[in-house]
Amino acid sequence: MAERVMTLDLNCDMGEGFGIYRLGDDSALLEQITSANIACGWHGGDPRIMRRTVAQALARGVAVGAHPGLPDREGFGRRDMNLSAQEVYDLVLYQMGALEAFLRPQGGKLHHVKPHGALYNQAAQRADWAGAIAQAVADFDQNVVLVGLAGSLLCAAGRRVGLTVAEEVFADRTYQADGSLTPRHQADALLTDVHQALEQVLTMVRTGTVVARTGEHVPIKADTICIHGDHPGAAQFAERLRQGLRAEGITIRALNQPARIGDDAERKC
Amino acid sequence: MAERVMTLDLNCDMGEGFGIYRLGDDSALLEQITSANIACGWHGGDPRIMRRTVAQALARGVAVGAHPGLPDREGFGRRDMNLSAQEVYDLVLYQMGALEAFLRPQGGKLHHVKPHGALYNQAAQRADWAGAIAQAVADFDQNVVLVGLAGSLLCAAGRRVGLTVAEEVFADRTYQADGSLTPRHQADALLTDVHQALEQVLTMVRTGTVVARTGEHVPIKADTICIHGDHPGAAQFAERLRQGLRAEGITIRALNQPARIGDDAERKC
Amino acid sequence: MAERVMTLDLNCDMGEGFGIYRLGDDSALLEQITSANIACGWHGGDPRIMRRTVAQALARGVAVGAHPGLPDREGFGRRDMNLSAQEVYDLVLYQMGALEAFLRPQGGKLHHVKPHGALYNQAAQRADWAGAIAQAVADFDQNVVLVGLAGSLLCAAGRRVGLTVAEEVFADRTYQADGSLTPRHQADALLTDVHQALEQVLTMVRTGTVVARTGEHVPIKADTICIHGDHPGAAQFAERLRQGLRAEGITIRALNQPARIGDDAERKC
Amino acid sequence: MAERVMTLDLNCDMGEGFGIYRLGDDSALLEQITSANIACGWHGGDPRIMRRTVAQALARGVAVGAHPGLPDREGFGRRDMNLSAQEVYDLVLYQMGALEAFLRPQGGKLHHVKPHGALYNQAAQRADWAGAIAQAVADFDQNVVLVGLAGSLLCAAGRRVGLTVAEEVFADRTYQADGSLTPRHQADALLTDVHQALEQVLTMVRTGTVVARTGEHVPIKADTICIHGDHPGAAQFAERLRQGLRAEGITIRALNQPARIGDDAERKC
Repeated sequence: MAERVMTLDLNCDMGEGFGIYRLGDDSALLEQITSANIACGWHGGDPRIMRRTVAQALARGVAVGAHPGLPDREGFGRRDMNLSAQEVYDLVLYQMGALEAFLRPQGGKLHHVKPHGALYNQAAQRADWAGAIAQAVADFDQNVVLVGLAGSLLCAAGRRVGLTVAEEVFADRTYQADGSLTPRHQADALLTDVHQALEQVLTMVRTGTVVARTGEHVPIKADTICIHGDHPGAAQFAERLRQGLRAEGITIRALNQPARIGDDAERKC
Repeated sequence: MAERVMTLDLNCDMGEGFGIYRLGDDSALLEQITSANIACGWHGGDPRIMRRTVAQALARGVAVGAHPGLPDREGFGRRDMNLSAQEVYDLVLYQMGALEAFLRPQGGKLHHVKPHGALYNQAAQRADWAGAIAQAVADFDQNVVLVGLAGSLLCAAGRRVGLTVAEEVFADRTYQADGSLTPRHQADALLTDVHQALEQVLTMVRTGTVVARTGEHVPIKADTICIHGDHPGAAQFAERLRQGLRAEGITIRALNQPARIGDDAERKC
Repeated sequence: MAERVMTLDLNCDMGEGFGIYRLGDDSALLEQITSANIACGWHGGDPRIMRRTVAQALARGVAVGAHPGLPDREGFGRRDMNLSAQEVYDLVLYQMGALEAFLRPQGGKLHHVKPHGALYNQAAQRADWAGAIAQAVADFDQNVVLVGLAGSLLCAAGRRVGLTVAEEVFADRTYQADGSLTPRHQADALLTDVHQALEQVLTMVRTGTVVARTGEHVPIKADTICIHGDHPGAAQFAERLRQGLRAEGITIRALNQPARIGDDAERKC
Repeated sequence: MAERVMTLDLNCDMGEGFGIYRLGDDSALLEQITSANIACGWHGGDPRIMRRTVAQALARGVAVGAHPGLPDREGFGRRDMNLSAQEVYDLVLYQMGALEAFLRPQGGKLHHVKPHGALYNQAAQRADWAGAIAQAVADFDQNVVLVGLAGSLLCAAGRRVGLTVAEEVFADRTYQADGSLTPRHQADALLTDVHQALEQVLTMVRTGTVVARTGEHVPIKADTICIHGDHPGAAQFAERLRQGLRAEGITIRALNQPARIGDDAERKC
């Protein structure tokens, strides 16, 4: 049990460029993280970028996940769209299959699914979307991990259909008394200091709580930390966070992934 | 050996509508054919239509194949595009995976792949595209059948990577002395009479040749017949063709598919 | 004043096919209507269809309007998307310009703009969208008529920026006591009988009110009637409606359009 | 006559990002050029980017042109597609109209059209495409300048329909004995030294010829120079080229544009 508590995953969205457009420094980030969420060609990504990003992740031993998004490339999948649960089920299945096609020839397996942008946010609050996503993942492969906002409806829906669920927390965002993230437009929404961020994560892992910006101790389960790849200095932030966690005895590895020989159950530095 | 010669598959493109748009009478055609080539959301189709068409095909015991196309929805994948072989490899893999995702929850397996439109036509003549498609199919699943124009570079490329290949012929098109199809703009390109069409197919199956419109006997291998679903009266044409073939002792079934008990190794009428 | 009241426009959405896909019987409907709302290549339509539909409308003396939609071809522009007012302004301007480009070489002028689907519905209720659309139309051409749901925020916004506004009513839908349309899922939402539909429209034109399904007389301004082109029998319904209106002395013509000689100020039968 | 020879335009493609994706340093380049070719939302660009780029160009007194491309966002409009002349006509008209819609509210006028990527290259060699593009421009506005590869079929087609044509040359590419550009894969295809580039342009402007890499003097007409905005150091290259040209007495201004008071008939440094 103790072992479970002291394990943590670092995940990052990847392969979100398109055609000639580039986004984020995937190569540098892949050196720091343990789970890559790879865009599937809808909000971002295309088949060439998917193949290459899968190859890069596998070469570094990073667990590969699908990062499906809404059919809104112009808005990068961040604009709310009022899709039906059936439409959500269908688009998640489609994108999982498309990504898995690039894993198979390269000897990899689909490890997890993390919805993107408005799909992620709405699935945290809309029960029908949460259920549709969880069902799509379970129908595709019962062994795939579902990543959702910690404490969200999506995580609950995943457990309900028997999936392993990774509750996602944020190192660089503050929390409110009800356990939700402080909206970005508020003054103290961000933790830009890496020591503060590290402290917040350590508290989460060790105590199962987060200190809200108004002082309350709020229960939270922290399985995986979201690294924002599109921030300047993202790779450096991730590296310092990872080193800080390791120094405190936290094992950094993806959920359900076996320990790697000679690496103390986590990926190489 | 004799058994092989007297077996034939009837295939038809399916699920090529999009959003609110409908195309072809898939339900009626599924009663007649043994292989359905289902559009994968690029030249036609979308996740909802893919799911439904897969369900319809499986319910009728029709073998399900992927029907990948070029990234040209406006041109329905019929306009030549000068993609690299790598781009072709990637888009075929992507679309196969996307379609397979809808087979898995429904208990089906991907049976074959038939490229669409300009992808099919160019792959018949461009060695690099033929090789890229064959490699994508083999990398995805070595047991998937590759459907190509009879005598084309695509069929040769498929055999080279060890795939089962289905050579496709046309019942309602005439052939030229070099084994190619008479271009549509020519006067005698089409066989509109179903008896003539049936006669042409029977000759192909029994003698391994086709009589060119200029009288020559040209060698041709006939594994599967293309039924054009977008023609008016397509389902009726297919029904009469199928009945005519059965009356002559030809078994109608998909390649590599096991005989079905009580149905004389073919699908129910 | 009397002249204004006894004039009515019949409008219909047009050119909403895409690529090889067809939708609605535009040719038959163009014989009945006075205003064509032509899709601009986003929710439906493409440049070829736009050019052809413009040509057909001009040949019949039907006023040509732009019918801009959300960037959601798969959902036919009917799914709500949470765009900013600036995004709405930009997409309306883009689509107006694209359509006008096909009018210019053919000697036509852009007569009106009617938003499509979710853009129309949300603009009726969201003040920021209503203002953005009205501003885009006014910035493009102050002489273009803005068509909106009768009594909606869109109509109010149009008047605020000095545009001529056409308040749109429905012949085949019932109204509620607050002046809104009865939702489709309710039992008595539709008027399928053409006599009832005609009666409702006559009451609107003559009295400036509509009788709600619960009996109340609700003020409503009726400048133009929406003909649903995708219904079976749409052209016949339009023809009977138009003949009924003419028989009652109503002049059928587009807003701000001059009377045509020899046609009693309306288009030819 | 002398005045005409000693005038030159510097043009650059602009606004080719998409959604959250950025491409090129438009702001820096707008300080150096006299004609901006703004993407119209097909190969690159979207309505928001179009509006903003138009505003930036107008604020700097740079002539605004449309930069239409093929319907291939994934390939950035660089992959050959076999469209019909009618399809080319329609897409050019559509994109011109869409761009002009953003000029109108800002008080600008469409100054020129320069096709993008494969549309530009194929129009230089395919007579039907050249004619279709020229006709679309002429049908839209007879006063719009058509920009094409110097000596190409597109320039000839433009003159045939009475348009002002700007023949485009390259400062940083070498030419072959037949007047065509040395293909990029050849060793001496590029002139990376700005002095050599300046020398080549000066020779073109003064003598109406270019020295081919094999030594021949080849006639060429130089109305406008293409600045490649996506190269690193593009703005600096443009600045040095422009200063060098001015030092040699060449007036830098867009075709058909009036001289600006106090600026020696060219834009401010």
